[in-house]
Amino acid sequence: MEQKDGRQRVVIENIYPELQEGRFPVKRVAGESVEVYADIFADGHDLISAVVMYRHEKQRKWREVRMEELGNDRWKGRFPVVREGIYFYTVSGWVDHARSWLHDVRAKADDGQSIEVELQMGLLHLEEALGRAIGSYKEELQGYIDLISQEGRQAEIVQALHDERLEELLRRFSEKRFPTTYPRFLRVLTERRKALFSAWYELFPRSCSPDPARPGTLRDVEALLPRIEQLGFDVLYLPPIHPIGHSHRKGKNNSTTAVEGDPGSPWAIGNEEGGHKSIDPALGTFDDFASLIESAEKHGIEIALDIAFQCSPDHPYVKENPQWFKWRPDGSVQYAENPPKKYQDVLPFNFETGDWKNLWKELKSIFEFWIDKGVRIFRVDNPHTKPFPFWEWMMKELKSRNDDIIYLAEAFTRPRIMQRLGRLTFTQSYTYYTWRNNKWEIKDYVEELTQTEMKEYFRPNFWPNTPDINPWKLQSPNEAAYMMQLFMAATLSSNYGVYGPVYEFMEAAPVSGKEEYLNSEKYEIRHWDWAHETRVSELMRDINVIRRNNKALQNTSNIEFCETQNDQLLAYYKWDDSESNRLLMVVNLDKDHPQSGLVRLPLERLGGEHGDKFVMLDLMTGNQYVWESEWNFVLLDPAHYPFHLFRIEKL
Amino acid sequence: MEQKDGRQRVVIENIYPELQEGRFPVKRVAGESVEVYADIFADGHDLISAVVMYRHEKQRKWREVRMEELGNDRWKGRFPVVREGIYFYTVSGWVDHARSWLHDVRAKADDGQSIEVELQMGLLHLEEALGRAIGSYKEELQGYIDLISQEGRQAEIVQALHDERLEELLRRFSEKRFPTTYPRFLRVLTERRKALFSAWYELFPRSCSPDPARPGTLRDVEALLPRIEQLGFDVLYLPPIHPIGHSHRKGKNNSTTAVEGDPGSPWAIGNEEGGHKSIDPALGTFDDFASLIESAEKHGIEIALDIAFQCSPDHPYVKENPQWFKWRPDGSVQYAENPPKKYQDVLPFNFETGDWKNLWKELKSIFEFWIDKGVRIFRVDNPHTKPFPFWEWMMKELKSRNDDIIYLAEAFTRPRIMQRLGRLTFTQSYTYYTWRNNKWEIKDYVEELTQTEMKEYFRPNFWPNTPDINPWKLQSPNEAAYMMQLFMAATLSSNYGVYGPVYEFMEAAPVSGKEEYLNSEKYEIRHWDWAHETRVSELMRDINVIRRNNKALQNTSNIEFCETQNDQLLAYYKWDDSESNRLLMVVNLDKDHPQSGLVRLPLERLGGEHGDKFVMLDLMTGNQYVWESEWNFVLLDPAHYPFHLFRIEKL
Repeated sequence: MEQKDGRQRVVIENIYPELQEGRFPVKRVAGESVEVYADIFADGHDLISAVVMYRHEKQRKWREVRMEELGNDRWKGRFPVVREGIYFYTVSGWVDHARSWLHDVRAKADDGQSIEVELQMGLLHLEEALGRAIGSYKEELQGYIDLISQEGRQAEIVQALHDERLEELLRRFSEKRFPTTYPRFLRVLTERRKALFSAWYELFPRSCSPDPARPGTLRDVEALLPRIEQLGFDVLYLPPIHPIGHSHRKGKNNSTTAVEGDPGSPWAIGNEEGGHKSIDPALGTFDDFASLIESAEKHGIEIALDIAFQCSPDHPYVKENPQWFKWRPDGSVQYAENPPKKYQDVLPFNFETGDWKNLWKELKSIFEFWIDKGVRIFRVDNPHTKPFPFWEWMMKELKSRNDDIIYLAEAFTRPRIMQRLGRLTFTQSYTYYTWRNNKWEIKDYVEELTQTEMKEYFRPNFWPNTPDINPWKLQSPNEAAYMMQLFMAATLSSNYGVYGPVYEFMEAAPVSGKEEYLNSEKYEIRHWDWAHETRVSELMRDINVIRRNNKALQNTSNIEFCETQNDQLLAYYKWDDSESNRLLMVVNLDKDHPQSGLVRLPLERLGGEHGDKFVMLDLMTGNQYVWESEWNFVLLDPAHYPFHLFRIEKL
Repeated sequence: MEQKDGRQRVVIENIYPELQEGRFPVKRVAGESVEVYADIFADGHDLISAVVMYRHEKQRKWREVRMEELGNDRWKGRFPVVREGIYFYTVSGWVDHARSWLHDVRAKADDGQSIEVELQMGLLHLEEALGRAIGSYKEELQGYIDLISQEGRQAEIVQALHDERLEELLRRFSEKRFPTTYPRFLRVLTERRKALFSAWYELFPRSCSPDPARPGTLRDVEALLPRIEQLGFDVLYLPPIHPIGHSHRKGKNNSTTAVEGDPGSPWAIGNEEGGHKSIDPALGTFDDFASLIESAEKHGIEIALDIAFQCSPDHPYVKENPQWFKWRPDGSVQYAENPPKKYQDVLPFNFETGDWKNLWKELKSIFEFWIDKGVRIFRVDNPHTKPFPFWEWMMKELKSRNDDIIYLAEAFTRPRIMQRLGRLTFTQSYTYYTWRNNKWEIKDYVEELTQTEMKEYFRPNFWPNTPDINPWKLQSPNEAAYMMQLFMAATLSSNYGVYGPVYEFMEAAPVSGKEEYLNSEKYEIRHWDWAHETRVSELMRDINVIRRNNKALQNTSNIEFCETQNDQLLAYYKWDDSESNRLLMVVNLDKDHPQSGLVRLPLERLGGEHGDKFVMLDLMTGNQYVWESEWNFVLLDPAHYPFHLFRIEKL
């Protein structure tokens, strides 16, 4: 921060994006770009030039892109990130004496003042630039020098001084004198494309058996892969597949006493057959697991595993490393609680143990174990109940070795905490989407995610349901409600997911008065008619095809909500970077009644004017409309389709 | 930044106020306080405690004030600054295990669960706290320990567990385990009260002669002190008093050729009689200056000098230190320009000289020279045309030796630059007030100054005019316009000033089509009838008395604009810290016509309710009104008074 040379006159401050003084990187996927903003100014009237400097961690040489002033001393530059890994960037600026001279001499010449002395000063600038120039630029500069050196050609010289080309040559080759470089190298964590664009399907392997007489296995999951592929999902997420504890095992519907045959919660991890690095023998073997991973790849699907850092009382860790748990005065181990609630089948780790370093190492080895087994995606259970310093270390450690792993943070908690986990480089996060119902709630929330600094580090993954959340609005098997919630998840967010069978088959009877499932798969084995397909299944297939074919749906931040004259109609516009793919979504939020009203086309964004006509092709139905004005009538009947998904073409 | 102990579970981020990672201090005057905000949270469900730690630079021991959670993980604490100098502050937070235990055991007891083991755990917490407690607190804690240790007194124990006092004892004495302390010590630059509350009067000494036959002198200024005291001003600001150059001296009305007797611009500093450390012999001697300073003090006035770092071509520096100037190819020194404009009587320093270190030292010695002569206030001319690193160094150097000097930055330029100078610890700044005319412009601007981060470092000083700015609205001698502009400057901002004689006597004929004065005192000697007083003079006297008697007018940030049903009526409410002094100002912005309409009392701020009655005492006129509802009728006639200044009393 200390000023080394008092002649560094340029000030650079208020850089965007910069997360907590560069402590955390911003996130991108390969192929995206980073727009960098900064306040840049100096004393006095001289002109300034500024660049964004950037390089990939594996490149030595810095590249530069020129910044442009937006007005009021705010500058902007943009650079592409093409490779996975870390990019570094910073900003540099300097008083541009050569261009300042050019602007001054132009003003004086235009004012009819003598510029004799100014031309002598200019020759110094030009010759100085000549010494730096290369190739044909040298000749161009020499041409200007020759002209300016001649006497009696004043008119010609004044005209030449106004050449844009002359200014460009000075920009390129004149001296960067006493440059100020922002004192930190900021980082871009560049990930693979799936970090930004993915469709998740969740199921319980033990419920995958085609035979109601026996529980499902990993082999049964493998047999379902073609079906999931056909639905268009590319991530298959499995709850924990480890041995399940016996002590305090939960019975059906979360009862505190299990009876013979109750399988227990998969999140009560560990028994005498092993812990986090074992597979429940009832589900299969490591060979079965390897086969599942391999088959999935052939179907274009990746298997996501659950990482839940907690133990059943029977987990081998409890005996082997008692110091990792909290012991009570009565000699028992502290189980998980949120008083007065109790979770006796689950023991949390005590992260305040004196042996925390070994605990951290062991937990890291769990990730590494499954990475070695071919897993590239993890859904991390309740990360907000483990210390942030632990995750900061863990993410750095894991990412220093594997930069293609995706981590989905399952933290349904307060905003600051979810944001912090995003900054600690969890790849994606669950969200509050599940509880956003009316038009303003949805708009405000999506704008918070996409129009604030959160877009730089927090990648939402929209789930209309999970095994833990049976939202009020989906508790009765209303097809329109299911279709609408899925449609919005899949078109508002480029990452989305569903707790699949319950969603497809709309079997969502609640525990009375709660947002929980009756007969939850968390506590018992279910059997599904996997041969069956509903209209919801069809929508999954259709919307996933449309997502693959329309780049506008492959990014979350490119969204603008549109005005409608009916509060039950939600409309939003999305586009791809080239703006060749432009979509307008209109949703009827009322699952029970048709709703109609005017919807406003975002003409400014579309680059259109009053009077332009647009062809609106509904990609769901194939119907085509011509919209001839800014405001257009829409009628959506939930009995048919509760939404339009228009591709917009200018007529 | 590095995590030392992985068990420091609390995260502290997004501290407010913090200027550029602590590089710059926030500003206060002695007697104010600092409200510190931070996002503070940890993993899991445990309770957190947090404090602001602070100390004066001359104290060794840190003090602590407890922070309170405002909701959504945002916390707030406040500490007082009582001495001038630097205060350091930071934030510390920790997982509060004792209070977490208390809350858990309360929840379990209320739920009817057994708390036997919990009481055993609680005894550990209480005994641990006992070891830290002092005095009578020890007995109180022992009392709780004795009670909880007894069997068969369950009901009594449960009741005791709910004591607020028990929680308070645990807050005070339980262990701060693995605390996280924010990694930077932030600073508060605490200045004397005049930094925040001052009224400036500007005049040209050479125009102070009572005898039209001769120019004014410092002795003549001294003779005017009783008059300025009577008007109620406490700072008398003089343009440069140094010898004035001859070369390219400007004539009357800024003409490029001076004639015999033209005195030149006081800002063209230096001739054969000396430079920045000399007094123009026409004005007087150092003895005269010492006498002026001494007399001023007796009249409760401080003399503010102008520091303008530039030279006339005749300044001794030009010969003695030619390396501090920019030389052109024709052997001349570069004068000040903003092409096509030229200022041939002024040479800027070349801050890019290789000899910059000596230049900086010499310029610092100019400040020190006048500080030694008893000057405590400087108005710094055009600081934005000298490098920011220079000012950062200069302010640090000067303030390390004298913490009671006030620096007013005269930078009328772009926002980012004015803000930067504020952060570099210029005490006060000129503003855009001069050009804010309608209700929304005034409201938006004042809210930017008082409701954003600017309030932490940028102290506005509102000037309705200066020798350089003759604003359109004051170019005709309209008494109402003059009164309104003065009234708003003096009541919107606790620091304000006027270019005095021109303002009092409303002699403001413009250079045609420009916001400049015809026959400007910058280029010629004027004579004023100092015995004369106008209604504007009377208003100065009255408003300065009112400012002294009403604390609500001694701070700028305590302001809330009020709704009015007429866009020509501007209303604003101000209050002091104790809210015992509460003022409502209403201004008619239309200088030519009476305006009337309803004005809304800020009932929420006033702590009032519908139906409350308020006595409104107009401090300008002594008239008294009773307002019986939220909206009240106001009529303001510019021919009489174009404003109300109400002191509000609840009936």
